[in-house]
Amino acid sequence: MSEARVTDETVKPAPKALPRGPTEGPLTPEELQLSARNHSMPLEALRYDITPLGLHYLLIHFDIPMIEAAHWRLAIGGHVARPLELTLNDIRARPSVTLPVTLECAGNGRSRLFPRPVSQPWVTEAVGTGLWTGTPLAGLLAEAGVAENAVEIVFTGADHGLEKGHELDYARSLSVAEAERPEILLAYAMNGQPLLPQHGFPLRLIVPGWYGMASVKWLTRIEAVTEPFKGYYQASNYHYRSGPDDPGEPVRRIRPRALMVPPGFPDFLTRKRTVAAGSCRIEGRAWSGQAPVERVVLGIDGRWLEAVLDPAPGLFAWRRWSCVWEAEPGEHMLSCRATDASGQSQPLEQNWNWIGVGNNMVQAVPVTVR
Amino acid sequence: MSEARVTDETVKPAPKALPRGPTEGPLTPEELQLSARNHSMPLEALRYDITPLGLHYLLIHFDIPMIEAAHWRLAIGGHVARPLELTLNDIRARPSVTLPVTLECAGNGRSRLFPRPVSQPWVTEAVGTGLWTGTPLAGLLAEAGVAENAVEIVFTGADHGLEKGHELDYARSLSVAEAERPEILLAYAMNGQPLLPQHGFPLRLIVPGWYGMASVKWLTRIEAVTEPFKGYYQASNYHYRSGPDDPGEPVRRIRPRALMVPPGFPDFLTRKRTVAAGSCRIEGRAWSGQAPVERVVLGIDGRWLEAVLDPAPGLFAWRRWSCVWEAEPGEHMLSCRATDASGQSQPLEQNWNWIGVGNNMVQAVPVTVR
Repeated sequence: MSEARVTDETVKPAPKALPRGPTEGPLTPEELQLSARNHSMPLEALRYDITPLGLHYLLIHFDIPMIEAAHWRLAIGGHVARPLELTLNDIRARPSVTLPVTLECAGNGRSRLFPRPVSQPWVTEAVGTGLWTGTPLAGLLAEAGVAENAVEIVFTGADHGLEKGHELDYARSLSVAEAERPEILLAYAMNGQPLLPQHGFPLRLIVPGWYGMASVKWLTRIEAVTEPFKGYYQASNYHYRSGPDDPGEPVRRIRPRALMVPPGFPDFLTRKRTVAAGSCRIEGRAWSGQAPVERVVLGIDGRWLEAVLDPAPGLFAWRRWSCVWEAEPGEHMLSCRATDASGQSQPLEQNWNWIGVGNNMVQAVPVTVR
Repeated sequence: MSEARVTDETVKPAPKALPRGPTEGPLTPEELQLSARNHSMPLEALRYDITPLGLHYLLIHFDIPMIEAAHWRLAIGGHVARPLELTLNDIRARPSVTLPVTLECAGNGRSRLFPRPVSQPWVTEAVGTGLWTGTPLAGLLAEAGVAENAVEIVFTGADHGLEKGHELDYARSLSVAEAERPEILLAYAMNGQPLLPQHGFPLRLIVPGWYGMASVKWLTRIEAVTEPFKGYYQASNYHYRSGPDDPGEPVRRIRPRALMVPPGFPDFLTRKRTVAAGSCRIEGRAWSGQAPVERVVLGIDGRWLEAVLDPAPGLFAWRRWSCVWEAEPGEHMLSCRATDASGQSQPLEQNWNWIGVGNNMVQAVPVTVR
């Protein structure tokens, strides 16, 4: 077999060039490959207050780094009075806090956009609620002594790769004031266990209320800087742009969203649901990073019913909602819609932008009642 | 908003009917939805002998059942002398065995087929190796006393739904002789922890050497039967068919496959790899359910190098392989190919069949060296 060449394209037509911007065309093999490696939370897991291990969504830009805790160090430096280099045990010896936090990918809902930005093609399930344990970032920043002229704190992970021609370690920043919020954690445990490799072992940032891109995984460096950070994932990606030349506004806090546990049972291929006629309790979870969720309505073919909200398990975690529907035989379209205390509701139509972030359009679940 | 109707199709063209058989057309939204909920193992996790929790592949036909262990029972019945009804503690009190087992979905590689059968569109990553703990099935079958005229044992799970018009609980059978193999487990733990909900909590079958469809999750019933089982997932699905009218041969044991840890680092969107010139150790894992893997070769642009094989962690688990490549600047196509002790090697071209099972065509990894 010395002459045999493997091309992965022995029979298929040659692959087409990727669209350069949002497309009206079909899904590409590149999007399928991303969808295969980045995990969604199957929607039936909305039944749990805390998402079981392995069901929380995962968005991993490059490869999962394989880090040995014994050799790992966290450097805290830049414009600080007392640079620190800490082992994992050093960090575990600091005061610890455990918080339930709902994280959601900024790109959640992207594949429902038309035209569709070509990137990780989430449907609606890029969410999860972990019980995160760590030490408050503010305490370590105080130990290091952030300089008065510092404007931002930059967080760098061990994950390395290329995006749009930029070769880089994944990095994001927060303003000093934001970084000092008491709920921001350097987390080393999730659901009572050391972080799994794919969730940032041995240490990650958790920024409650913000879309997931802020919660840098596999942390290696924290630096205070005196100029706003211009890294690719801060200044170029993760902006609400109307088109390629619009600098846009940065993506920050999670927009309100409600999702339902799909009722009844599914068809394997289409996921279309079948429900028994009669009283049917529809339940789900709702969250917003901007303000507490105050209201959820369940839509039945365009008629809206008030849902009952349970208390949230924490300030930054989703709330369970439920509503009884008298299901009558036939075809129905169910949806749910959250409103938060800032007055924002989910849009009924797509929330379109150039890179497909923050699309919190209401979920639509077609159901056959019989 | 009482009149507002949510359709999920406010701007998109109306969805097309799904192709009825294999298609030369683009990926469908239904395949994307399946790809979102069924998890692949990111290929960098080939670095681990035992796949960390949350990185093992998942194929879930219907919804993940939410089962409370306190109310759950396993019924062992049908043509047996002494029907049993067991609690989880009853099963945990039986002799326990812990085995590393590589499981792979029969549909792994489906999306690489042309024409493409429309179902879960795996690329190459539907695999994982768990450390499974349970009690041997054979012991419980002996306790129950399988009747002499029984021909098969049927395993039924709690997962319920529709496929191709069949409404059913997921169920599969094994011949009595196969079911009595000593390595077949009723497993209640994975990687030292109680099963996660998505892996079959509280109890699942593990059939080492077979594709994953045999390892029924969320077990509720085990029945000895005197006629071959004709359930949908036994008699209709999971067959190697040449076309819609060919009954085909049943899918059973895992065909040989080697995969590599993608070298260097990726581009986010294309996953194309960049590698530094010079000596580069390429590593991966190889497995076969038919016989031990005896040889792996690494392909570099059609030239094949012998890889070194490490011992397997168990009779039914993958083996690590590695090979040093002197990487020269330019574009290269890497591949790897396993051969097992039965003499079977992976094909260089697609292993096509009507429903896209058992496609163990060699992996192809394009790499830029610089």
